[in-house]
Amino acid sequence: MKTGQITSAGEASRRRLLDAATAEFATYGIAGARIDRISANANVNKAQIYKYYRSKDELFDAVFAEHLDVIVETVPVTGDDLPGYAVRLYDAYLVRPELVRLATWARLERTPVGDLYHFMPGHDEQKIRSIADAQAEGLVDPAVAPADVLAIVTTISMTWSPASPMYTAHTGEPEAVHEARRTALELTVRRAFTP
Amino acid sequence: MKTGQITSAGEASRRRLLDAATAEFATYGIAGARIDRISANANVNKAQIYKYYRSKDELFDAVFAEHLDVIVETVPVTGDDLPGYAVRLYDAYLVRPELVRLATWARLERTPVGDLYHFMPGHDEQKIRSIADAQAEGLVDPAVAPADVLAIVTTISMTWSPASPMYTAHTGEPEAVHEARRTALELTVRRAFTP
Repeated sequence: MKTGQITSAGEASRRRLLDAATAEFATYGIAGARIDRISANANVNKAQIYKYYRSKDELFDAVFAEHLDVIVETVPVTGDDLPGYAVRLYDAYLVRPELVRLATWARLERTPVGDLYHFMPGHDEQKIRSIADAQAEGLVDPAVAPADVLAIVTTISMTWSPASPMYTAHTGEPEAVHEARRTALELTVRRAFTP
Repeated sequence: MKTGQITSAGEASRRRLLDAATAEFATYGIAGARIDRISANANVNKAQIYKYYRSKDELFDAVFAEHLDVIVETVPVTGDDLPGYAVRLYDAYLVRPELVRLATWARLERTPVGDLYHFMPGHDEQKIRSIADAQAEGLVDPAVAPADVLAIVTTISMTWSPASPMYTAHTGEPEAVHEARRTALELTVRRAFTP
């Protein structure tokens, strides 16, 4: 019983730690994040943090990996509905901007060129297969390689994302504005990739 | 004669300063940039730097503004050739990754939502007009508003850019790889926006 309580308290504090770390890294990036601030916001002392994760970088890795899982589970690739995939990603970035911000900090601070997920070989195999299958079934134009279709559609979905070099959408905007963007994304992806 | 020499030396040191600041901000971002390092790399002492620019933020503004001008001049928007515009941007990012990195740091560190260029109202008027004209001439499908076409095409061009959350192209890759990407960008933009 006591062990159970301790484990459960440990799980709760690790959850608070990951949530506080997510907010900290999404706001300030890897170099800019402060373990002191994470510790205060999570109400987990620094000694305990370093028992879970040996370094700030390792804590970032844990946060980043968790968020990759979230986005893959929340918005799975649908090779037979790429326009819908782009629109669902638009909505996901709107309510969870940290998904995009964490990836973008990782790009700027860690991996300036090449595959951002070089440490996870094969991580997008299933996504690429979903698109290749749709091409084989005649649902997606086969002129562009499936991995490139995935890259382009995902990028299109980010037109108004938290990494946009032009305009980043936010929940404070009128619904009609979001709807116009969803329509534009849907139309663009449909026209670009339907045979 | 002496004044001329002094001015010319002043111009040369300001040029060195802006070049060193560009490299520093592109690599480390705004918070991560160090005036000490810029001073050493530019061979311009700190007192002199603060005579030109009152703060690190003001120096970043100068660097960012200069690079916006560079990209607008190097790759002007061609409403009558949006596929070519996307391909030319791909090539520009490849040889000048700092253009994208500076904008992305500004997005992450300064302006998490809304217009990244809110301090330059009307800065993209000419670009939008070029697309609106092409729509009026029947060269670009009018279903999507010209500002949104600009946002989507620019974003498509960034599929393999230095801000990509997937794969960032680099000059060390085989020419055939770049050529396949250019073809994919050309095809995607052409299909998406040709009436």
